[in-house]
Amino acid sequence: MSAASSTPTADGRIVLAHGGGGELTRRLVAERFLPKLGNALLSPLTDSAIIDVPAGRAAMTTDAYVVQPLEFPGGDIGRLAVCGTVNDLAVMGARPVALSLAMILEEGLELAVLDRVVDSIAAAAAEAGVVVATGDTKVVEHRRGDGLMITTAGIGEMTGEIRQAPDRIRPGDVLLINGPIAEHGLAVMSAREGLHFDTDLRSDVAPLNGLIAALLGCGADVRFMRDATRGGLAAVAADVAEASSLSVELDEAAIPMTRTARHASELLGLDPLLVANEGKVVVVVSGADTSRALAAMKAHPLGRHAAVIGRVTQARPAVVELLTRAGGRRLVQRPYGEELPRIC
Amino acid sequence: MSAASSTPTADGRIVLAHGGGGELTRRLVAERFLPKLGNALLSPLTDSAIIDVPAGRAAMTTDAYVVQPLEFPGGDIGRLAVCGTVNDLAVMGARPVALSLAMILEEGLELAVLDRVVDSIAAAAAEAGVVVATGDTKVVEHRRGDGLMITTAGIGEMTGEIRQAPDRIRPGDVLLINGPIAEHGLAVMSAREGLHFDTDLRSDVAPLNGLIAALLGCGADVRFMRDATRGGLAAVAADVAEASSLSVELDEAAIPMTRTARHASELLGLDPLLVANEGKVVVVVSGADTSRALAAMKAHPLGRHAAVIGRVTQARPAVVELLTRAGGRRLVQRPYGEELPRIC
Repeated sequence: MSAASSTPTADGRIVLAHGGGGELTRRLVAERFLPKLGNALLSPLTDSAIIDVPAGRAAMTTDAYVVQPLEFPGGDIGRLAVCGTVNDLAVMGARPVALSLAMILEEGLELAVLDRVVDSIAAAAAEAGVVVATGDTKVVEHRRGDGLMITTAGIGEMTGEIRQAPDRIRPGDVLLINGPIAEHGLAVMSAREGLHFDTDLRSDVAPLNGLIAALLGCGADVRFMRDATRGGLAAVAADVAEASSLSVELDEAAIPMTRTARHASELLGLDPLLVANEGKVVVVVSGADTSRALAAMKAHPLGRHAAVIGRVTQARPAVVELLTRAGGRRLVQRPYGEELPRIC
Repeated sequence: MSAASSTPTADGRIVLAHGGGGELTRRLVAERFLPKLGNALLSPLTDSAIIDVPAGRAAMTTDAYVVQPLEFPGGDIGRLAVCGTVNDLAVMGARPVALSLAMILEEGLELAVLDRVVDSIAAAAAEAGVVVATGDTKVVEHRRGDGLMITTAGIGEMTGEIRQAPDRIRPGDVLLINGPIAEHGLAVMSAREGLHFDTDLRSDVAPLNGLIAALLGCGADVRFMRDATRGGLAAVAADVAEASSLSVELDEAAIPMTRTARHASELLGLDPLLVANEGKVVVVVSGADTSRALAAMKAHPLGRHAAVIGRVTQARPAVVELLTRAGGRRLVQRPYGEELPRIC
């Protein structure tokens, strides 16, 4: 995606790219929201905010879901909403406890679809070990909504002692991921385009709190974690480099990816590094703890294909570079705007 | 509103009335969500759920806001979202601490509108003494959204000792309200219809946590509180009767209402008891504590026009009756479906 020279906000209006999770989103937040709403909890823009409660600490997070189609191979908007919020809590080191569930229904939505989505929410919540603690439902007129939109918020208990934060990242740390990339975005795009592949292409959407608890329990010094959703692996690697002021070197040959996903991304003309995942976490650990962390991840069903995919270096300036299969190097950049609209 | 004899779900689809906060909403929740999602936290359908956290208790709530127009006399969707969530925490006896803020923006939304709404969110949060602790932004295509939809969730500290719950309501208890009814719904409807009145008709949208803290601090035995939003005073009175299995007698002459609001409701053909408020709380207190509770409310700026509006009786069956100005009695019923669409 090339950087446009003309500003996409020329008309003084919101454009799709404002919500793409890339630079334009970052600027919207930094320029228009933070100056007015910023505070010690909001401003770090971490995946969860740590809320002080009497004699305890809670993490709180929220996400709105507007995926189209509502149902896709491997999941639906309900599973997505539960897992997304659970994962945003888990990557902060919190134990997810309770979710809120707000649904905006479009007049004309089939009840059968709603039923299936509610089933899926219940199943995903059970899988993750969380409860839906409170909710709200609104309905808007036909053509004023888009079938079904879901916003979840979550709170979690901060039980651990060790802090996971990008300022703890050091040169020599390694990056791991728990399995193959790009499957969620490609599954949704394929469903939207009516494409079919020889073998299953299914979203990876899953609650990662069990895997993350196992990882944190293994004793490895986990510096930082982030689930690679919108913006894909590239966006998380860029986050790591930006927040630590260090460089990240990714090894293309080491990044897990299925043959079907590779084929689909070529067909759709997408860079898999930029494609959203919904069941993948990028973990930065101390280099000395690499084997221990990898073993802990591989021992969990959602980490069977875990791999070491890169390292943190002192190279200047702080950038993300990909060591390609062909032996070259290329710069990896955060997607500028909306790479894949309506993917979550 | 007459009860339709044909079922409004004949086509197996969601209708507007499902989200109206009335009986059809209740049935949607009771029949389709609770059997699958129900648990000790969700099933009581209280305004906030009490979340256990280590050595402490937090309240959590959520609401989605889809009001049209986005801006109306006395407020906008941003002020509404903050106050609605703050009030849902406060009526549970919680001290609101932090909000989450998820926005779904429609492509084409003017940034100037967004700026004003964000200003309003910041101002309302400051007024209520809460922070926006975490957030999310999504954008949908033109005609797939409706300008701007907001979902807030909130968590609050449970600090009090005395429990407010409908099972504590007793015959002889009295109902109070902190001021004139129906202003929010009428202001929004008037803005939508392009109506103008001689004197200001403005939404009452306001954070009630200060007023409620003052009330709880006065020592009166507050049995139950609920903010009278969708469904109006009638819906809360019905909640009280239903949850306590006791009757409620409302005194029409005692219910505060401005002349402008009365005029507007006649013009629009609306029963003011059914019209939404966004800054009114119905309080049930022990009869012996009536004066103390009324004085505490009147001493607060948002309670200057507080009044005793009714009482709880043992009349069978458990219903809500209005003693009319004319000296008659009429049954007050929960609105069946969507009385005023898109009011919050």
